[in-house]
Amino acid sequence: MSKNIFARIAAGEVPAKIVYEDDRAVAFRDINPQAPVHVLVIPRKEIARIGEARQDDTALLGHLLWVAAEVARREGIANTGYRLVINNGPHAGESVPHLHIHVLGGRAMGWPPG
Amino acid sequence: MSKNIFARIAAGEVPAKIVYEDDRAVAFRDINPQAPVHVLVIPRKEIARIGEARQDDTALLGHLLWVAAEVARREGIANTGYRLVINNGPHAGESVPHLHIHVLGGRAMGWPPG
Repeated sequence: MSKNIFARIAAGEVPAKIVYEDDRAVAFRDINPQAPVHVLVIPRKEIARIGEARQDDTALLGHLLWVAAEVARREGIANTGYRLVINNGPHAGESVPHLHIHVLGGRAMGWPPG
Repeated sequence: MSKNIFARIAAGEVPAKIVYEDDRAVAFRDINPQAPVHVLVIPRKEIARIGEARQDDTALLGHLLWVAAEVARREGIANTGYRLVINNGPHAGESVPHLHIHVLGGRAMGWPPG
């Protein structure tokens, strides 16, 4: 079975501009950035999308949100502000079937969010 | 000290169209919806924004994400797709200083997300 691109990044098989990693999560720059700072936070565990996370994944999910906020602090956008986005399924434009949190900042973000 | 509007909704002091609640979270319809389904998921605990969550809040943060996905299932948008959004600070247009996750679905969402 071939892994998806994000699973391969998490496994170190594909290079990426990694900005944070620990035993459960990896954060790296989006290759098609939509803001001056655009980082993706993913779990090492293969969860296809948020809708497929189980209740016993909640500690991991919370850790991913904490990592997203930590990335924002390290990138210097914690005070100016940032938006976190999770896309699930066709209407959201979900791209890769490996759960990821977008961290976007460094510019004013509009409303609605897409 | 006067509570913010979301804390008052969580406390049952202000009415809202609640779609889900449990001992740690409340979900209710946004009064200014940006999509056919637009629900906000908040913790009962007063956390101003994701950047102020602490590492020992991660179980709660993960529960909020699980509730967001559960709301999507109950609203019938789990398969068509939905976007989760968390705004932190001025650049993101953060409105109320009480952590909330937007659940948006029922239409195709554009990219970038604002």
